[in-house]
Amino acid sequence: MPKTALPRRLAAEGIGSFFLFGGVIGSGIMAEQLAGGNVALALLANTIATGAILYVIIAMLGPISGAHFNPAVTLAFLMRRKISAGDAALYVAAQIALGALGALAVHLMFDLEILQFSTKARAGIGQWSGELIATFGLVLTILLLLKYRAEAIPAGVALYITSAYWFTSSTSFANPGITIVRSLSDTFAGIAPADVPMFILAQIAGAVIATGLADWLTAEGAADH
Amino acid sequence: MPKTALPRRLAAEGIGSFFLFGGVIGSGIMAEQLAGGNVALALLANTIATGAILYVIIAMLGPISGAHFNPAVTLAFLMRRKISAGDAALYVAAQIALGALGALAVHLMFDLEILQFSTKARAGIGQWSGELIATFGLVLTILLLLKYRAEAIPAGVALYITSAYWFTSSTSFANPGITIVRSLSDTFAGIAPADVPMFILAQIAGAVIATGLADWLTAEGAADH
Amino acid sequence: MPKTALPRRLAAEGIGSFFLFGGVIGSGIMAEQLAGGNVALALLANTIATGAILYVIIAMLGPISGAHFNPAVTLAFLMRRKISAGDAALYVAAQIALGALGALAVHLMFDLEILQFSTKARAGIGQWSGELIATFGLVLTILLLLKYRAEAIPAGVALYITSAYWFTSSTSFANPGITIVRSLSDTFAGIAPADVPMFILAQIAGAVIATGLADWLTAEGAADH
Amino acid sequence: MPKTALPRRLAAEGIGSFFLFGGVIGSGIMAEQLAGGNVALALLANTIATGAILYVIIAMLGPISGAHFNPAVTLAFLMRRKISAGDAALYVAAQIALGALGALAVHLMFDLEILQFSTKARAGIGQWSGELIATFGLVLTILLLLKYRAEAIPAGVALYITSAYWFTSSTSFANPGITIVRSLSDTFAGIAPADVPMFILAQIAGAVIATGLADWLTAEGAADH
Repeated sequence: MPKTALPRRLAAEGIGSFFLFGGVIGSGIMAEQLAGGNVALALLANTIATGAILYVIIAMLGPISGAHFNPAVTLAFLMRRKISAGDAALYVAAQIALGALGALAVHLMFDLEILQFSTKARAGIGQWSGELIATFGLVLTILLLLKYRAEAIPAGVALYITSAYWFTSSTSFANPGITIVRSLSDTFAGIAPADVPMFILAQIAGAVIATGLADWLTAEGAADH
Repeated sequence: MPKTALPRRLAAEGIGSFFLFGGVIGSGIMAEQLAGGNVALALLANTIATGAILYVIIAMLGPISGAHFNPAVTLAFLMRRKISAGDAALYVAAQIALGALGALAVHLMFDLEILQFSTKARAGIGQWSGELIATFGLVLTILLLLKYRAEAIPAGVALYITSAYWFTSSTSFANPGITIVRSLSDTFAGIAPADVPMFILAQIAGAVIATGLADWLTAEGAADH
Repeated sequence: MPKTALPRRLAAEGIGSFFLFGGVIGSGIMAEQLAGGNVALALLANTIATGAILYVIIAMLGPISGAHFNPAVTLAFLMRRKISAGDAALYVAAQIALGALGALAVHLMFDLEILQFSTKARAGIGQWSGELIATFGLVLTILLLLKYRAEAIPAGVALYITSAYWFTSSTSFANPGITIVRSLSDTFAGIAPADVPMFILAQIAGAVIATGLADWLTAEGAADH
Repeated sequence: MPKTALPRRLAAEGIGSFFLFGGVIGSGIMAEQLAGGNVALALLANTIATGAILYVIIAMLGPISGAHFNPAVTLAFLMRRKISAGDAALYVAAQIALGALGALAVHLMFDLEILQFSTKARAGIGQWSGELIATFGLVLTILLLLKYRAEAIPAGVALYITSAYWFTSSTSFANPGITIVRSLSDTFAGIAPADVPMFILAQIAGAVIATGLADWLTAEGAADH
């Protein structure tokens, strides 16, 4: 756990979420505007921009706050008692507040209405199972790399999401905070507010299962004798 | 060789194969659905998703099971007596069983029939020589990096497959396990069941040749005097 | 701070800027010529070429000059008193002079008029806020990585710009030197000379804010007691 | 310098050139076949496949032979007396012979005529200056990274070529050996035999200039006093 003072840790969570949430939404806007209806190309650009910013914010802010930028990740660390419940709540608040500011900043940059609500329906067994599996894989990646190869976390998380954007039907939100904030943008990356709760439920389920599995996989005494 | 207990090693092989096989098939489905007939763009997205997930699963699960996720790789380690025949058989079973589950999960996510058989013909001297060369290169990459630069294996394998998807006519399955499982998906990444045996034969040949060549290239006493 | 003699440091700044500015402009020309009106595809190729060359020049020239290639970065180091005002002025001169030579070389390579002025309008609150945020993020990335993970600076800067090309409406020039030189190319990456001053103003503002924030985030005594 | 016995070093040069030359030509064929006339997309796939295989072969074979795969690179090491003239000649022979075999193997894989000659004209001041600058940058990258950050050579060379494919008008052959072999393939990556000599001349000029510049930039006694 980082020993940095709490205000700086919260600032780091906020700054990272600003660039992550803003980066996902902004690159979606740019990609859709330029791609002229070619959705595969738009998602490819959105994917590359998302993976790239993930590497950057985890590498540069990890030493300050642990680089969660995601309530599901904060939950996993809370389950492992690596963060107190009070700090976890503040982390989540910082992620959502500054992440939402990132969305607004992106709307400003692209000359769009600052305040919006998405109208894009994202629902159904397929998408919910997608979110569960996506978040399961994300949290497993973080917990296993943290144990075995911590210096690879920035690249590992970036590449996991790069891949999961394509192998899940939901394009892997995998983050309750960004799910909420993406409901505030009626653009490529948006999600209708009514569809947010089921996404978050699936994400939490995935995170909880992954944390349990990681505990078993990495348990002391797991070696052969 | 990892000293982790066998059940955990098998779980790691299964989890990695779940994400690898599911990732290859799932990203193929998403890419084809979005690309609107632009096959080059679909394969590019499929390539990036495949390379990215390979990095992740090798980096996070390598310390537990050695990160084979591929019967041809398990065969190479068996030839080198780094794994027992019994464990090798269980590795392959875990790869195929959980990998197949990955295919089914992807079908669920994309609202497709869960159980399918591919109808995509993939045969001929061109494709078989492609599979032999593809698997030869993959196993050579793993064995040489293991000797000289083990920490580069996740990136090396990911980038090797990224490239081989394009320079072989078969798009480099290079893995008997995924070849079997891809016959269970009538989608972008599929292969007709009847075409599976020749692919596997070519892959095994490539793996055996590469193992022999790697032995010679890295032999003790290979240095000048 | 590098202790290399000043002429070699200036040469390194010039060589890096030659390849960076030339690389950005040249890849824009190639991409636009080949993409046949598909702007998303052209920007994607331009993005990948830019990110890739950034990694290379920072990795290979950083040990000589510190690898600024950007007056906004030189300004940040001047604010931190890591470079003298005189050297900083020479750095900026080398960046612009050799960077402009890179633009001319690219025009030669693509059989275009060697001397040109861009006619592409880039202005408005959206683009200016984009440049401010883009440069803020770039300088923050550099300063935080320098403190916590210096060996990740080549990848971090490359991936930051890769992402920022897409999440800002201005496609992230984030560099007063390249902004000036891009006004000398009436091609994909160009900017009309009249629009240059506001871009530079926004970039300087972003760099100054980032330097102050980085000072606070990484201050001594920032740890909990 | 590697101390491995010469036959193994030549084998390594040959194997790497087989995959590099075959990879460049093969991915060009695949990309052009699938891209349906979208040249930007074809070049993007060709670029990614080329950069990826470069990382792999340099990382895995560098410890054996030094990973030249390029007569211009062998020339630079000869100028620095890091390889004898006799060994250098054998290196170049191995690169061209096995690289040509890679081209033939690719033609086999894609069911094309095994023996071909390219008819693609590539000539003019623009392309020649492109090759000179491309090879200059490649050799400079290798020599500076070798001095300051040798472990970054695989990524550095891969990313340099990734970028240079786009910022030079010739798409950066930057390698006399691959230039010769690409004349043996009447496909996307080909070059008419008559245009080969001028490309090689420009490449050699670039390599010589880069070696001289690198000597000056990294000279002992270059530090301030």
